[in-house]
Amino acid sequence: MKKLKIPEATIIRLSVYSRYFTELVRKGIITLSSNDIAKGVGVNPAQVRKDLAFFGDFGTKGVGYNLQDLQQNILKILSLDADWDVALVGLGNLGLALSSYKGFRERGFIIKNIFDNDLSKIGTLINDVEVLPVSRLIEVVKQNKVQIGIISVPSDFAQEIADMLVQGGIQAILNFAPVVINVPPEIKLRNVDLAGNMELLAYNAS
Amino acid sequence: MKKLKIPEATIIRLSVYSRYFTELVRKGIITLSSNDIAKGVGVNPAQVRKDLAFFGDFGTKGVGYNLQDLQQNILKILSLDADWDVALVGLGNLGLALSSYKGFRERGFIIKNIFDNDLSKIGTLINDVEVLPVSRLIEVVKQNKVQIGIISVPSDFAQEIADMLVQGGIQAILNFAPVVINVPPEIKLRNVDLAGNMELLAYNAS
Repeated sequence: MKKLKIPEATIIRLSVYSRYFTELVRKGIITLSSNDIAKGVGVNPAQVRKDLAFFGDFGTKGVGYNLQDLQQNILKILSLDADWDVALVGLGNLGLALSSYKGFRERGFIIKNIFDNDLSKIGTLINDVEVLPVSRLIEVVKQNKVQIGIISVPSDFAQEIADMLVQGGIQAILNFAPVVINVPPEIKLRNVDLAGNMELLAYNAS
Repeated sequence: MKKLKIPEATIIRLSVYSRYFTELVRKGIITLSSNDIAKGVGVNPAQVRKDLAFFGDFGTKGVGYNLQDLQQNILKILSLDADWDVALVGLGNLGLALSSYKGFRERGFIIKNIFDNDLSKIGTLINDVEVLPVSRLIEVVKQNKVQIGIISVPSDFAQEIADMLVQGGIQAILNFAPVVINVPPEIKLRNVDLAGNMELLAYNAS
């Protein structure tokens, strides 16, 4: 399935649909129409149909989509049909918030290792995960075959941590430090620049 | 200046350059070249020159850019030459991290009001800001002429909070709830979907 060339915007919407479906499954919903989906997530019905049509025809005319089938298919497309192991580096306020962010856990992103250099944090437990010193990062990440690293350290240390994660054999990095980091081309990288988002918003609003 | 049509990617890079300059000003740097900037933020020098050339010629050949001048000009372009008043709604783990996020304060985004409905939080002080009940949001935001709202409430409440912020006269919203919210066209909206970023990363890595 993965080899389809799917636009990034579609993937993001699939991810939104799919999280909405989780909610509906909880409520006991069995089938739904593209109009229901559209209304639930705030995009137009034609867009929903177009997005879902990318992957063949999941729906039955007049009946709509079987929610469970649709959800299973989308999770498979998104490679979320199995859990991902995540290491978080940097346990400041943001790191702490991310370490217990339900939106990650619910979607199968399991924070298995947490690293920080603050002596008052090392050895403490965050959601049953022991905080380890950064000096052990490469070894532990390699041993546990961790797939994704989250960087929430100050900017000055972000590149160094990225290098360590890469050495540890990580496949992907989600970087919250507001600085450009460089990784080898085979490593997937996404930057979430909080202040940058705010500044772009202010620029557009002014 | 604002009426120039500047691509979003350029604005984001200017924001990155400018935060790097703040660091350099602290270190007492007076002038720097496009190569220095490029090296400091991890983009290529040609890109830096192209970005800065958008706004006329700030540099002097052979001498480079005067850091202070360049910084002032960029802050003006980004509409960051004056502070922005911000209201934060939703004081969960993420809201708490955002409420004391240095990256906002340093760039002139001042959280002036915080709202939550948790009785154990209402009345407490977060960085000298009193947490108020959501029932007072419209009134307080209107009275204080707050310009930007941050939404960090659970998805189910995000639209309702957005509506209240709009009623309070806000100009822009930074939404962290992983749900599509609808606002009138004159309101600027940016969504920061943390799990969505993670899912896109996983999709690309798989």
